[in-house]
Amino acid sequence: MTHENRQYRLAARPVGLPKATDWEFTKEPARAPEEGEVLVGVEYLSLDPAMRGWMNEGKSYIAPVKIGDVMRAGGVGKVIASKAEGFAPGDAVYGSTGIQAFATLKAKELTKIDAKLAPLPVYLNVLGMPGMTAYFGLLDVGEAKAGDTVVVSGAAGAVGATVGQIAKIKGCRVIGIAGGAEKCRFVVQELGFDGAVDYKAGDIRKGLKEFCPNGIDVYFDNVGGEILDTCLALIAPRARIVICGAISQYNNTTPIKGPANYLSLLVNRAKMQGMVVFDYAARYGEAAKDMAGWMAAGRLKSREDIVDGLETFPETLLKLFSGENFGKLVLKV
Amino acid sequence: MTHENRQYRLAARPVGLPKATDWEFTKEPARAPEEGEVLVGVEYLSLDPAMRGWMNEGKSYIAPVKIGDVMRAGGVGKVIASKAEGFAPGDAVYGSTGIQAFATLKAKELTKIDAKLAPLPVYLNVLGMPGMTAYFGLLDVGEAKAGDTVVVSGAAGAVGATVGQIAKIKGCRVIGIAGGAEKCRFVVQELGFDGAVDYKAGDIRKGLKEFCPNGIDVYFDNVGGEILDTCLALIAPRARIVICGAISQYNNTTPIKGPANYLSLLVNRAKMQGMVVFDYAARYGEAAKDMAGWMAAGRLKSREDIVDGLETFPETLLKLFSGENFGKLVLKV
Repeated sequence: MTHENRQYRLAARPVGLPKATDWEFTKEPARAPEEGEVLVGVEYLSLDPAMRGWMNEGKSYIAPVKIGDVMRAGGVGKVIASKAEGFAPGDAVYGSTGIQAFATLKAKELTKIDAKLAPLPVYLNVLGMPGMTAYFGLLDVGEAKAGDTVVVSGAAGAVGATVGQIAKIKGCRVIGIAGGAEKCRFVVQELGFDGAVDYKAGDIRKGLKEFCPNGIDVYFDNVGGEILDTCLALIAPRARIVICGAISQYNNTTPIKGPANYLSLLVNRAKMQGMVVFDYAARYGEAAKDMAGWMAAGRLKSREDIVDGLETFPETLLKLFSGENFGKLVLKV
Repeated sequence: MTHENRQYRLAARPVGLPKATDWEFTKEPARAPEEGEVLVGVEYLSLDPAMRGWMNEGKSYIAPVKIGDVMRAGGVGKVIASKAEGFAPGDAVYGSTGIQAFATLKAKELTKIDAKLAPLPVYLNVLGMPGMTAYFGLLDVGEAKAGDTVVVSGAAGAVGATVGQIAKIKGCRVIGIAGGAEKCRFVVQELGFDGAVDYKAGDIRKGLKEFCPNGIDVYFDNVGGEILDTCLALIAPRARIVICGAISQYNNTTPIKGPANYLSLLVNRAKMQGMVVFDYAARYGEAAKDMAGWMAAGRLKSREDIVDGLETFPETLLKLFSGENFGKLVLKV
């Protein structure tokens, strides 16, 4: 039995925001697994800001997606057919499936996940890459500890929401930066942040100063641009700034805005450090154990913004850059 | 017996480069020491880029110099009169004397130095603050280790020259960035750097790429601006950038130029960290012992650019910002 696959392939390198013509929608039969391979029926796909970077040419922490290739994406689904030991039809798995309905992958590229422990989309969020990014970025790079004032931007997004919740669990004071009153209410009332500043509602600096009278000890940056600069001006001595992303700059057609207040690092003997989650692969298990425990205890929430239909991919991706998504953006195949 | 003191006081907060009218030259009798105090005859004064920052209003790692106060500066000299135990006329001392011919200071604000071990000006250079800054910035913040490629800007300046020499002693490959062919020759031929790039002679990026084919592991930044940005683009994975100063930006009347390539920190999982030498006060002895040993062994050179005459202070200070000084800029009283 063959399955008709549907795929989004990269057709052109975008200038600014990706547009419809940067994609090619293709249909072809899914390839049957060979020895050591598994055919996965993809159920949910992760849409992430980092995807924008993968569409660009040039040296980065990971090779660019080639023109004509299926767009890279993490996905979860169930095994349809297996020629690999340890994988049987019906097993739930995570892998870099790409934006398509079926993926034929080597068994070693797949991770089995426990569909009874949490719904599949959670493995694209708190128990997946965004969760791992939040965990290691905050605790390892940010060195957050009890009593610290932690500020996180993109606070209602996949990484930010988990950063803030873990920081609360660790005894920090947590302030989120998010766009719009609803997201700000969400991070405070649903996620337990100590405060939130709405970057769409005016003076971020004033809001942060009120919430952080002793300065910012850890700033977890998902956005870059003016918000990074404002936070730099408000850091406390020996602050740690985690550079996780810069979504405000990804679609720039002009040069990236560098943080003019970077000399605050000198005055405050502070550090600004970049992180890439893949470096922590050997320690994912440790993080997953902590996070699953916190979820089971009701201390850590995983919120997904699930959009239905593989065919909506090009426009759904844009929700990330307009700030429309609320929680982890997931595409249901 | 009273001594006539001569002093430079801050008269106005400069806009851009300090000018003559930003200073007031005063004469008054030197104050005789009271109990616990020492009268120092100042012989050499340290002129440093950081002085420009001390002239500005606003929060920093140290209080601004007040209008009307003697300009802050480190100095070395000899005790003239003492009402403090442990200090006798003729003793050589280091302290924050200010830009003046005599300073009456508390004994605890002074450090005795050994005029037989090295000439007095060396205590304003390799055995003084620039040397300590280089030592702890490179080894503690920059975590330089054998085999690393180290790049330092302001390479012929007080801090840069010592950074490069210590890095060589530690087994690093060292490239300096300096202004002009003579300085470049000096750091390579006199100080033993592996290479030098003349920032006045064109394409720094091209020069650095040739000298650093595997990228930069440690960049020690004294200058900021375009040079910082260029180095950011060339860092190796897990690089460390030491933010020690930003002399290119100190006299800006427009906003500081932020490093547009800061996302290279993310791609390379690198860190950029500020340092202030005073934080290492408890460990100065450890550094001084190493450095005096290296000097005695002929492995570490201290070069001073000594300008004669306290009265030349306003124009001599400007040599730092035009890049005219060659080695540590010192004013002979």
